[in-house]
Amino acid sequence: MNHKIVASLDITDEKKLISIAEEISNSVFAIKINWPTILSLGKSIIGKLSMFSKVICDLKIADIPNTNRLIIEQISKENPWAVIGHLFPGPDSMKSLVDNSGEIKIIGVASMSNPGSNVYLNPNFENLVSDAITLGCYGIVAPGNDYELLGKISRAKGPLKIFSPGVGAQGGGYKKAISSGSDYVIIGRSIYENPEPLKYIMNLEGEN
Amino acid sequence: MNHKIVASLDITDEKKLISIAEEISNSVFAIKINWPTILSLGKSIIGKLSMFSKVICDLKIADIPNTNRLIIEQISKENPWAVIGHLFPGPDSMKSLVDNSGEIKIIGVASMSNPGSNVYLNPNFENLVSDAITLGCYGIVAPGNDYELLGKISRAKGPLKIFSPGVGAQGGGYKKAISSGSDYVIIGRSIYENPEPLKYIMNLEGEN
Repeated sequence: MNHKIVASLDITDEKKLISIAEEISNSVFAIKINWPTILSLGKSIIGKLSMFSKVICDLKIADIPNTNRLIIEQISKENPWAVIGHLFPGPDSMKSLVDNSGEIKIIGVASMSNPGSNVYLNPNFENLVSDAITLGCYGIVAPGNDYELLGKISRAKGPLKIFSPGVGAQGGGYKKAISSGSDYVIIGRSIYENPEPLKYIMNLEGEN
Repeated sequence: MNHKIVASLDITDEKKLISIAEEISNSVFAIKINWPTILSLGKSIIGKLSMFSKVICDLKIADIPNTNRLIIEQISKENPWAVIGHLFPGPDSMKSLVDNSGEIKIIGVASMSNPGSNVYLNPNFENLVSDAITLGCYGIVAPGNDYELLGKISRAKGPLKIFSPGVGAQGGGYKKAISSGSDYVIIGRSIYENPEPLKYIMNLEGEN
């Protein structure tokens, strides 16, 4: 198993999703899905995938405390391993997610892999990471295609685990992200658009 | 019809939701639903409600451009009137929502009704509103329980329509929100937890 890869399977075809998930589940740390998959297949897909893999629901939850609580309560029924939520709506919103998450781990967002992340998120990364530590998050999202920022977040992370998107189709390199501080590297299109997803993952493992 | 009320029906019981929606649909501007409802009842509930009311999907979408596009594509199939997305992830993320929204109106978030909104969102409200105008949003979310901030956003809004949560259970007053600059006032628990929702709405209309 490659303990450092999170496979982001942004697929809306259930057969294809389950097929790839089954093929790679023993070779990755976790499988991540997002709203497009849940909207297309219903939230029960979380439970189906969690039968054979840790599942991270990348929901980027970003609402007021009461609504955050209602969302995590709905998602909890499907037993994901972790859920991703934003920190920028404020500490009260993130506190509501953590307090209502039960056994589910909460991963906060310090920065994303898009260029626009430089405008509002990145200038606040130190406070966002600090909030995540204080509020009891398990991990933090930091970009795997911005090694300088990733390094800074790595030095500020305390006990948090770093999950890094932006590797593969978005330009980041797997080894470079790891050496810059990522604990887990999120890879999407390079896995699920690859005709041989398992072989691609095994090759990365060899590189590590 | 009260042209200024958006009823936020955060209900996960389909019978109760449809029943209240049918009762009030001719007396409000639009009905707003959020993730807990969609997670519980499936996205088809959007289409069901849109048969007799404008539907605003309050999804607070906050992801990278490619994922934002995939989310709005899934939601578009159900013909909502408008979708709410965050501006904080950066102009490229909001641009992707607007560019892929077709006939659906996009409402950006300048500020929310929770106290934590003061930490990261509110200090950036001028730039967030400016982004919303530049990128072609239809409206902006600004709190109906912070009249000073609402007034400031109202003076900066340009052609945007202001949608204000925070009225009712969260402390804001309907008339005061309108006089501070709200074009539409979002009311949730005070409507759907009321034994007589329509009467409550009619009384507000009388006040206006």
